[in-house]
Amino acid sequence: MRRLLSGCIVAASLCIVFALEQPSPEWMSQGVIALNHSLNARMHPAPVTAVKVTEGFWAIRRKSGAERMLPGLLDLMEEHGLVDNFRRVAGKKNVPRKGRATSDADVYQWIEAAAWFLASPEGSVAPDRQRIQARLDGLITDVLAAQDASGYLNTFFSAEKTHLRLTDPVHSGEDYCLQHLIQAAIADYRATGDRRLLEASIRFSDNILATFGPTKRPLATGYPGLEMALVELYRTSGETKYLDFSRYLLSGVDRDRLHLKDSEIHSMFSGKPFTSHTEFEGQVIRALNAASGATDFLAESGDPAYRHALDLLWSDLTLRKLSITGGVATQSGGEFFAAPYDIPNGANSEPCSAVASVAWSFRMLALTGEARYADVLEQSLYNGALAGGSTASRLACYRTFLGANAERIRGANPDADCCPLSAEVLTESLSGYLYATSRDGLYINLYNSSELNWHLEDDVGIKLTQTTDYPWDGEVKLALHPEKPVQFTLHLRWPSWASSAELSVNGNRIPVESGPGTYIPITRTWQPGDNVRLEFPMQTVSMRANTRVSGLYGKIAVLRGPLVYVLEQNEQAAAPHSDIFIRVNGPGTAEFHKEMLGGITVVKYPGFAAERAALDQPLYENATAIYGRNRRSITLTLIPYSSVGNRDVGQIEVWMPAIRAQETQPLGSANHGLDDRQLIQ
Amino acid sequence: MRRLLSGCIVAASLCIVFALEQPSPEWMSQGVIALNHSLNARMHPAPVTAVKVTEGFWAIRRKSGAERMLPGLLDLMEEHGLVDNFRRVAGKKNVPRKGRATSDADVYQWIEAAAWFLASPEGSVAPDRQRIQARLDGLITDVLAAQDASGYLNTFFSAEKTHLRLTDPVHSGEDYCLQHLIQAAIADYRATGDRRLLEASIRFSDNILATFGPTKRPLATGYPGLEMALVELYRTSGETKYLDFSRYLLSGVDRDRLHLKDSEIHSMFSGKPFTSHTEFEGQVIRALNAASGATDFLAESGDPAYRHALDLLWSDLTLRKLSITGGVATQSGGEFFAAPYDIPNGANSEPCSAVASVAWSFRMLALTGEARYADVLEQSLYNGALAGGSTASRLACYRTFLGANAERIRGANPDADCCPLSAEVLTESLSGYLYATSRDGLYINLYNSSELNWHLEDDVGIKLTQTTDYPWDGEVKLALHPEKPVQFTLHLRWPSWASSAELSVNGNRIPVESGPGTYIPITRTWQPGDNVRLEFPMQTVSMRANTRVSGLYGKIAVLRGPLVYVLEQNEQAAAPHSDIFIRVNGPGTAEFHKEMLGGITVVKYPGFAAERAALDQPLYENATAIYGRNRRSITLTLIPYSSVGNRDVGQIEVWMPAIRAQETQPLGSANHGLDDRQLIQ
Repeated sequence: MRRLLSGCIVAASLCIVFALEQPSPEWMSQGVIALNHSLNARMHPAPVTAVKVTEGFWAIRRKSGAERMLPGLLDLMEEHGLVDNFRRVAGKKNVPRKGRATSDADVYQWIEAAAWFLASPEGSVAPDRQRIQARLDGLITDVLAAQDASGYLNTFFSAEKTHLRLTDPVHSGEDYCLQHLIQAAIADYRATGDRRLLEASIRFSDNILATFGPTKRPLATGYPGLEMALVELYRTSGETKYLDFSRYLLSGVDRDRLHLKDSEIHSMFSGKPFTSHTEFEGQVIRALNAASGATDFLAESGDPAYRHALDLLWSDLTLRKLSITGGVATQSGGEFFAAPYDIPNGANSEPCSAVASVAWSFRMLALTGEARYADVLEQSLYNGALAGGSTASRLACYRTFLGANAERIRGANPDADCCPLSAEVLTESLSGYLYATSRDGLYINLYNSSELNWHLEDDVGIKLTQTTDYPWDGEVKLALHPEKPVQFTLHLRWPSWASSAELSVNGNRIPVESGPGTYIPITRTWQPGDNVRLEFPMQTVSMRANTRVSGLYGKIAVLRGPLVYVLEQNEQAAAPHSDIFIRVNGPGTAEFHKEMLGGITVVKYPGFAAERAALDQPLYENATAIYGRNRRSITLTLIPYSSVGNRDVGQIEVWMPAIRAQETQPLGSANHGLDDRQLIQ
Repeated sequence: MRRLLSGCIVAASLCIVFALEQPSPEWMSQGVIALNHSLNARMHPAPVTAVKVTEGFWAIRRKSGAERMLPGLLDLMEEHGLVDNFRRVAGKKNVPRKGRATSDADVYQWIEAAAWFLASPEGSVAPDRQRIQARLDGLITDVLAAQDASGYLNTFFSAEKTHLRLTDPVHSGEDYCLQHLIQAAIADYRATGDRRLLEASIRFSDNILATFGPTKRPLATGYPGLEMALVELYRTSGETKYLDFSRYLLSGVDRDRLHLKDSEIHSMFSGKPFTSHTEFEGQVIRALNAASGATDFLAESGDPAYRHALDLLWSDLTLRKLSITGGVATQSGGEFFAAPYDIPNGANSEPCSAVASVAWSFRMLALTGEARYADVLEQSLYNGALAGGSTASRLACYRTFLGANAERIRGANPDADCCPLSAEVLTESLSGYLYATSRDGLYINLYNSSELNWHLEDDVGIKLTQTTDYPWDGEVKLALHPEKPVQFTLHLRWPSWASSAELSVNGNRIPVESGPGTYIPITRTWQPGDNVRLEFPMQTVSMRANTRVSGLYGKIAVLRGPLVYVLEQNEQAAAPHSDIFIRVNGPGTAEFHKEMLGGITVVKYPGFAAERAALDQPLYENATAIYGRNRRSITLTLIPYSSVGNRDVGQIEVWMPAIRAQETQPLGSANHGLDDRQLIQ
């Protein structure tokens, strides 16, 4: 490992800052997840400190995050007394404890987000950096002061509740708070090298390890997540006891000693052997985080039983339960998995579920190097997760819907939910998801204008500049600057949504032999100044669900690139309060609107508007009746789902009832002789 | 009032048994609900004792109920110790208490069902009558022996739980058990004149009235239902204190004294003024029973605030929340109202919800005389409620679905649910729903072969014979035998599903001026031996939901007469494990199959079968892809929904994805110039 410092060489008429040959400290070389020493992981993510998001899609959202969400969320937590909870325990303030029992985790998530912000090269710009660094320092000082001499640290189980500490850890949420303490501490360490919070999290972890285990008191995670945090603590500290304890938690061996009910095991997705799971059930976030923890454990252990269970769960999620926006549809009004294929338009999902999907799919991707995991990562990231934040305000979502009628989905209260914090952690750490090295070269997992300042695994330094308007446009330009000519494979992700790809190196067209949903490997001796041009022609496409999704029959959703589009009432001024139908085959066109919602590409799509069914209309009527009265052609304007709900409250629809246009080609050829025409062939 | 005894006159070559002029006892003249003295009720239902269901649809189902369900359910309750609970309290048996805390209500519902069976003239046939009478007598003796000297009667709050009696009546279920005790006692009294159980229920009610009330301890019904039972107790006993207490419960005035949470009021649909409700929410059965109680109260009080609230609730139920089978769709996995218009194919509902809908719509019908309430009564009765029982076994349903994939919906355990008992009470009391008198004449609310032996409200005796194969066939023949020529209006219900009606009196065609969803009034001087022939041409029709029901877009259900039809996998042997589509406009044809499921009319409908989406097929695919591969025309065979789930477990669908047949007429004329063809126009 080496730390890239300063230096300058002239190559291809560019001045490139280069590294002196000087080892970089361990903390600076660790990625969002530190797989450097994980024998079973194919990818080793480049650290946040090595990637600068320079401009474009994510630069705008990260700027908004740093300027509004990050300070705004801490302001709100201060207003709600969540930081005072720590000051209270430390004796600095005499106030009642406030907030949910697990609100410490919210404070830790803020620390994690702020740390990733500070770790990011572009996060170094004053004055934001100084302000956030100062608030982070103050917060860490407050947290540390609240830690007990035993290492125990939880503001809920203090003062008059001290005697309840760890008396019911399966239901208390203490595990959940410790998870986020560890994750915050690791982020802070990887961002700054500061070990104070890391040592505190180790002391609390050691307190737990001294108390619980197969030969001590029994434990299962009531809120899985501690497993992945402990694996990461093992990776950070090198102490195998944390990996062992994660294995213990995943083993579920202490179910009987804990007297767990089936219903608890069901909802926790914990308390029985992880490897015995064959499908997702129970509370969505717990289950997905359990899968992330198991994937982390698999990366270290290589245990095939885990691989088998994770493969089954991946199929279950992606083939039966994942909404098109990459979130997880839940039972009405709750946070639990709905039945397989029960993914109707009205389904709601937490942005946290898409964030959790990103976390898990990134782990599966790093483990295997298979692009299909990156496809889901991208689907969840650009749609369900991104919808959790807001480009226009500090408002965030706890629930999002694929379709809703005048329901307000954004609120400002961080005390009620952790979703905006999870989304902010993801936004600030996102640079750590873009690039990864492998033994044979370099992977590009996500496209956004950015600079990578890192090294290959044979220690040859490399700087890479990526320039693109992705996801608005499918053209990506790369400029590579290895410190010397070096042979390696550049793996370029071909997203599954792109039906074709064009590739050229130094202006020479190269045939692409792989297909959508793979990585395109380019193996050559790369010279400083080499450039690559990649293009995924971006088209508007309409998608339908397969027939097992009964609730979506006859409906289509519109996508462009990785983005799912949504119909919001705001754009349909010409057809207020209407039933809206969409033509199956478009054609759709795209237009970039710089002034709209922070700059978005809208899609125009042909459709129809009709009088909305009156409130006193019978629920059921003869099927020969026309769907909607006074139907007329209109042009629908759709916006990216990630921008949903930022304006007036109104009708929204991802899945729109489809009508087949007559001018599309006759269906006879594909129709096996039927003399019928279908709405959707 | 007079009791119809014996006598014989010869009229129209028939020997008719007639009444001697002798007053019938009060108990014998009371209908299922006794509205004889209710000033605000338009209809006064003829008593169960006056109506003999002679043959046809309901005769078969009532026979099956009496022979299998009635004895079978008591056997199961004995096996599960629910009757022993009473013997235990009486000191007759030394056994532990078993079953749910509210299982006494199950025993009372059995008593109610058995009493209505014994009240029914055709229920007099030996040997069933003697056996059931004997078991009923034994059961009543056991119940009475368990009553405390104070009047208190509940086997759960006895022995070591005696000190908990009435300590938390809002949550204890004591109200629910008392409701069913009163209803059972009234049924037994109206069937047999035996006052023993009635007096017991009065003693317990008086115990409650002495303890609770505005100037005593506060009460609200945790499980509404006591309100309607108390109104009926007022009607039966003449004591206004029971009506007053019902008014107190409906008033919700003691919310503050009870410290009720909003969430409790929401789920109970009680604890705040009934008249403040504008939409249904919370637990379905509680809410519908609260509405029945409020309707009963309205029939006595005439309070317009109740009428206003009930009108709003009726619209809310029928325009936004009632499934096409007349049950109420619930949130996934629960018993709570789903969101408005959230009535997808996968929605489940309890048969109890359809039974509760029958109870409420019958009350609204009797109150107003408006046939639209009878339409909903019929919809719920012939579909959702009837599906709760079984023609083939004593198995019953707790949940039914409109669509399900290989889910077993019938079980045998009465300990887990009260649905089969509610359905059995309805079946045994059904004869009481058929006929009603009014000041101006006689109403026929439901069609089934039957004999009415009753009198008009001016005391002129009348016997009426109804002969029909309804609901398999729409022809109804009536023979009227008033004891003397008498002028009155015969009100014949024209179901809303029938687009036309043919009517003749004594062979002479009579023009019908009203329309579907009304009562056809025939005012004339009726002579002994007059006959009426009525025909509602019965066609197979396809229905769709309005566009606010997002989850049913593009789907149709098939109905014939009042019956909703369902596709069960059993009939689709030619297309196993297929995706099945149906043609919008049929044509459908009907065939009676005597040997099938106890004798049913099946509907044949044109459709298509295609390879079922593979389990590893992507959830989402390009919308231009064909729905289903290898699609071919098939003839679908559909069965009545009331017979669903009686055979092998397999796929079922009420709402089938629709494909529009090309040969139906072009849509241009109705299409407002659009150049498109639609799946469903």
